[in-house]
Amino acid sequence: MLQSLRGFRDFYPENMVARRKMFNVMIDTVRRFGFREIDTPSLEGLELFKLKSGPDIVNETFSFVDKGGREVTLIPELTPSVARMIAARRKVLTFPQKWFSLSKMWRYEEPQSGRLREFYQLNVDIFGVDNIESDAEIIAVGAEIMKALGIENEIIIKISDRRLIEGILRCLGVENVEDALRVIDKREKISEEEFSRMMLEVGVREEFLDKLKSLLSIKKEFTKDAVNEVRNTLEEIFPVSSKRRDVQEMTPGFSLALQATEHLEKLCSYLSLYEVVPYCVLDLGLVRGLTYYTGIVFECFEKQGAFRAIFGGGRYDNLIELFGDAKVPAVGFAIGDAVLEQVMKKAGKWYSENLETDYFIAITNPDFYPLAVRIARNLRAKGFIVEMDLLKRNLEKQFKHADRLGTKHVIVIGEDELKEGKVTIKNMQTGAQEKVDLKSILEG
Amino acid sequence: MLQSLRGFRDFYPENMVARRKMFNVMIDTVRRFGFREIDTPSLEGLELFKLKSGPDIVNETFSFVDKGGREVTLIPELTPSVARMIAARRKVLTFPQKWFSLSKMWRYEEPQSGRLREFYQLNVDIFGVDNIESDAEIIAVGAEIMKALGIENEIIIKISDRRLIEGILRCLGVENVEDALRVIDKREKISEEEFSRMMLEVGVREEFLDKLKSLLSIKKEFTKDAVNEVRNTLEEIFPVSSKRRDVQEMTPGFSLALQATEHLEKLCSYLSLYEVVPYCVLDLGLVRGLTYYTGIVFECFEKQGAFRAIFGGGRYDNLIELFGDAKVPAVGFAIGDAVLEQVMKKAGKWYSENLETDYFIAITNPDFYPLAVRIARNLRAKGFIVEMDLLKRNLEKQFKHADRLGTKHVIVIGEDELKEGKVTIKNMQTGAQEKVDLKSILEG
Repeated sequence: MLQSLRGFRDFYPENMVARRKMFNVMIDTVRRFGFREIDTPSLEGLELFKLKSGPDIVNETFSFVDKGGREVTLIPELTPSVARMIAARRKVLTFPQKWFSLSKMWRYEEPQSGRLREFYQLNVDIFGVDNIESDAEIIAVGAEIMKALGIENEIIIKISDRRLIEGILRCLGVENVEDALRVIDKREKISEEEFSRMMLEVGVREEFLDKLKSLLSIKKEFTKDAVNEVRNTLEEIFPVSSKRRDVQEMTPGFSLALQATEHLEKLCSYLSLYEVVPYCVLDLGLVRGLTYYTGIVFECFEKQGAFRAIFGGGRYDNLIELFGDAKVPAVGFAIGDAVLEQVMKKAGKWYSENLETDYFIAITNPDFYPLAVRIARNLRAKGFIVEMDLLKRNLEKQFKHADRLGTKHVIVIGEDELKEGKVTIKNMQTGAQEKVDLKSILEG
Repeated sequence: MLQSLRGFRDFYPENMVARRKMFNVMIDTVRRFGFREIDTPSLEGLELFKLKSGPDIVNETFSFVDKGGREVTLIPELTPSVARMIAARRKVLTFPQKWFSLSKMWRYEEPQSGRLREFYQLNVDIFGVDNIESDAEIIAVGAEIMKALGIENEIIIKISDRRLIEGILRCLGVENVEDALRVIDKREKISEEEFSRMMLEVGVREEFLDKLKSLLSIKKEFTKDAVNEVRNTLEEIFPVSSKRRDVQEMTPGFSLALQATEHLEKLCSYLSLYEVVPYCVLDLGLVRGLTYYTGIVFECFEKQGAFRAIFGGGRYDNLIELFGDAKVPAVGFAIGDAVLEQVMKKAGKWYSENLETDYFIAITNPDFYPLAVRIARNLRAKGFIVEMDLLKRNLEKQFKHADRLGTKHVIVIGEDELKEGKVTIKNMQTGAQEKVDLKSILEG
């Protein structure tokens, strides 16, 4: 028998009921923050992704040469497409633009727990603003989605600033910061010795290695005190010459790191306005693999680290310029559906997969079908979900079917009641039955 | 500057507002009829489509060989995927299953008016029932969607039955009915002479040619009288031997045609229960190109024939067997978004593309930002769409931005009012302003 491709999912009605509830909660949350829905093509020219991620992206995507000879790809992420859209209308759009979309993405990767070849992703971005208020709003939206889904106590949001780690690396003598970031990003997957060796290779001076490691290991509740502690540690471990309070005399690295701590401190105070600080952790080891981040970065995980990241994002002020003719600052994040489902299920918060039906109209005689249609039309016009028997089954089977459909009320059209101008309504939760005037249900 | 691929669309927020309203109306309608959402992969093995449509389908699809060496395709239609899903769980599903999905499809065709390479399609199907009640329900859902979109007076739904035309063709001596149907399907695109020549080629006897043409030209309001007239015409034009009322003595062709007229007559009476008959036309020239239909077929057009079909569908009782091990009857239809948009725009029924915002919180001093966040949080918690200034602009610019966002009420936090513990709320429609207690808006 033919099957779907590996890493692709079929959603039957029961699966989709729960997923749609999750999607609606997510979308409702971002809408209330003023984000507006957009949509991009699912297929784009491959050059769009090469421009952002380099030529190797072809290995991780469903890309191919189309019949017109053009290299195209199923989109593996949304950012290049929205960056292209912003760049294309930069001159006519009024900023800020706050966009979201919930759509499918595709990656040619080995399917694993929480990682599929086809998945849904909610993308949320603010374009045209480069201040801390917008950073705070983006993180607050992510946290509010977790609250709305009922899993805020199951998660932590790791926060850092790309400039902080970049500044530290520069203080430590590193010149090729991108290479160093890549090593740090891999840290949890390699041994301590290997990490040390690789950091020395990218230019960290040996005497600073332990200091770097202790900085990268900072993971504290995201408070002003925590940020101050980082600043104090920086001041302790770096030579006096680099930390003279007069900016003119600081090394560029130290100045950058200091700027980042000031940014983080303010971010913390703004996040406290949104009451999301309890879910946030300052984590200097967080860099996120993608090189295009320019400011804050964040990643949300299930607390016990049981799964991949639930969502992740950050500020990327230089990306849109790649696709257009001018810089447009941007900050955003993306949430995939697969890990979210795992976390919600583990927390017992996954939605019921039962179908829901307001009314099922059962008939004791096929001759009552016209009347059943009339009743159904009237109730549907009022917005109710109404089902009826299409198979001319006996009453018992109709009730069984009504039950499977999660029916709240069954309306029974029976001979005797009909003679009195009445029908019976059975409440399927309580089992209570009452006779009501047919007229009231046809017109009421 | 990089652009989207030809035949693919970018949807900016304003475009998406209207489209989402259209989608919501469509989905709300099918839900009320008891249809349940499902979702299929966007990429499938190509053999699924070859099985249904033959090997030439590869030319009309975005198909390619994936990195694992498998022939795959972006789905050009939903039917094979849902048929696969039904076949896979035939033994555990309880029927009827009533499914819908709204998702993207892709076809490698030359983009034209109303025909794109990437489009949205609403698919609606009933599986497991092969009676006229389900045929009527499917057509009624289509008509109800047109009503819900406000374009019921702009459209007609052409209805026929594949068995009627097939029976007629058999009476006329045609043996290869599929070839004949293909010619009839092309009729409007070829000359009368060419049509005659091709019909003779597929086996229509010359003396019947005019009779066939007059039958194919029948287009009448879909009433019992119209169906009776077709039956009378059939009885008139076919030799006595084929129409003996005793079924045993009829030719198989005549018997099939007669059965179809009886089916259509009953369908008509059921459609009148749904009050959709005024939008329906009996059109014997309608065959629909796809060969897999086995019963009713229908297509909805803008009345004046200005566009391609809005929706089309029919009964396909033999398709699911192709993908599984047993027959499952099915009836359904699909609506694309592009033609629907054209029809709605022509009728002046397209939705407003204005953004909508419930509250915009303007501040006269950046120091009021924390208060603005608190007000925003409270209003968002109540379900309102709330925006605030992220750019620290002056009040005039904030109002301008609020206006662009379609704001209903602007809450102004100003120094003087704040001293009295108040904020000003301006109704943007009426221009009316009132001062309200800050407390009531923070807690109320």
